[in-house]
Amino acid sequence: MAATGTVVALSGGIGGAKLALGLSRKLPPGCLTVVANVGDDFSHLGLHVSPDIDTLVYTLAGLADPQQGWGRAGETWSFMSALAGLGGPAWFRLGDGDLAMHVMRTHRLAQGVPLSQVTAEMCASLRIATRILPASDDPVRTRVKTDQGWLDFQDWFVGHRAALTVRELAFAGAEQARPLPAVLEALAAPDLRAVVICPSNPLISIEPILVVPGMREALAACRAPVVAVSPLIGGRAVKGPTAAMMTDLGGVATAAGVAARYRDLLDGYVIDEADRAMVNELDVPAIATRTLMLTLADRERLAEAVLAYAGRLRETMR
Amino acid sequence: MAATGTVVALSGGIGGAKLALGLSRKLPPGCLTVVANVGDDFSHLGLHVSPDIDTLVYTLAGLADPQQGWGRAGETWSFMSALAGLGGPAWFRLGDGDLAMHVMRTHRLAQGVPLSQVTAEMCASLRIATRILPASDDPVRTRVKTDQGWLDFQDWFVGHRAALTVRELAFAGAEQARPLPAVLEALAAPDLRAVVICPSNPLISIEPILVVPGMREALAACRAPVVAVSPLIGGRAVKGPTAAMMTDLGGVATAAGVAARYRDLLDGYVIDEADRAMVNELDVPAIATRTLMLTLADRERLAEAVLAYAGRLRETMR
Repeated sequence: MAATGTVVALSGGIGGAKLALGLSRKLPPGCLTVVANVGDDFSHLGLHVSPDIDTLVYTLAGLADPQQGWGRAGETWSFMSALAGLGGPAWFRLGDGDLAMHVMRTHRLAQGVPLSQVTAEMCASLRIATRILPASDDPVRTRVKTDQGWLDFQDWFVGHRAALTVRELAFAGAEQARPLPAVLEALAAPDLRAVVICPSNPLISIEPILVVPGMREALAACRAPVVAVSPLIGGRAVKGPTAAMMTDLGGVATAAGVAARYRDLLDGYVIDEADRAMVNELDVPAIATRTLMLTLADRERLAEAVLAYAGRLRETMR
Repeated sequence: MAATGTVVALSGGIGGAKLALGLSRKLPPGCLTVVANVGDDFSHLGLHVSPDIDTLVYTLAGLADPQQGWGRAGETWSFMSALAGLGGPAWFRLGDGDLAMHVMRTHRLAQGVPLSQVTAEMCASLRIATRILPASDDPVRTRVKTDQGWLDFQDWFVGHRAALTVRELAFAGAEQARPLPAVLEALAAPDLRAVVICPSNPLISIEPILVVPGMREALAACRAPVVAVSPLIGGRAVKGPTAAMMTDLGGVATAAGVAARYRDLLDGYVIDEADRAMVNELDVPAIATRTLMLTLADRERLAEAVLAYAGRLRETMR
């Protein structure tokens, strides 16, 4: 990694955060900007919860629960237990330590501080060298159409355990949302060496970033290679509803199906070694490598492979 | 206790809650109404905290920490620890379980539900048979003038550990506050057998109740005897800043000094056996009995003594 320059990663929660962590460890401090999905954000008990930002923060601060990939390691649950005694809602579980993030964020937002600044303050307090930027400071809320009607994302995902067939997705507020200026600046930076679309759900983690007006244009215009990493391995997601959701919405639950969603944006694509046969069938340049990230070494190795591949693509783009 | 009828108790936090618990156990379910001080209420990190209501709720629900008298037994502190990591304020400690109360209350208030109804909902969930009523649904906020200027009550009490000399007290919002109709109804109830002013700080626990317009008049007009229990024993408070505060404000830190504050309202007064010599020096009928409430039996015994005394006073008032 003799190359210098900055990298922008687009990420949802768990899978994306793993690669973001790998990238952060393979780049000089301050060289990585992660654009986070805010489509999963919601208000619960009056608290503003940003699940993907939280997962990124915990992962990059080394505070994440290593087993489940989200939430804090060593979390306690006294709040939920007391809340149950008060007849409060139990469907969305808020850990005691995790609440600090939601309470602080809600408090600062109520003071008129934008989400991006609140997030920056948290990252500074936790000494996270990576910049985590919400795609927008304006609300973009993923909505899911099911046979029971339109549901808020968390209602579908957590409340119904992602079990209802998805008929359609919508992103409320997207049309009015303004892309975060810092995101556009990062994508236009002269020293940008790569844009990485992390192995996140393309429909509900990456799409709510891309639908923010101006975002696709900024990605298309940027001079660095845009490289996506497939979240599907052999047609299956490591975790979460990606595969079923893609099929439900008339797509193909394969690495190729994911690439089809990004096609106009991609300069290169990284798929799992299990899908190696697919490399030459894709409409986009691709490489196959191990993408499963079980250990920290896995995350660093994949980050290294993605950066090296972007470097090779950059050579051919000149 | 053959007598039937209802009882209204005026209470602040710890000491008052102890007697309220005793009363609740000596009266048939549903016969006790506790009017709670809201002068200590404040907004912290955007959460509405009602310390005295919380102490009453925990005490009457059997959830209170038996050592410190406030907060929940078996509390955990992950929130505060995580909050510190985020650079959040540490001066007011919010327990993990305790947060459930603040988050639920804040959420319901933001939905436009008045504090009295929120409190009633909590009491119902926790199966508390006693009615806990805030003195008012409108804000009444105790302010403390010190040599450093005017401070919010919690800033003085917790932030400065009640160490700054009190020059003056004020109750912001009191003039505009409306007494809770249910409190006035309880005080005018035909079956009212006693009003008990609990052994709380007269200046910052009971006064913010009495300053609500109409409250003193309702107490003066009620046909049942009004009996106060002194919070001072031998010139000392069991807990808290009562004695120092009374001296600071030019009063006398004795049971007599407390009675002077209530004089126009009292039909009878209960002082500690340690102050027995004072019984005949008071301007108000009084009895002396053990008022220190270390055990549950102490609370029940004092409650019984107060109710019996009120019964005797009721006879003489006829």
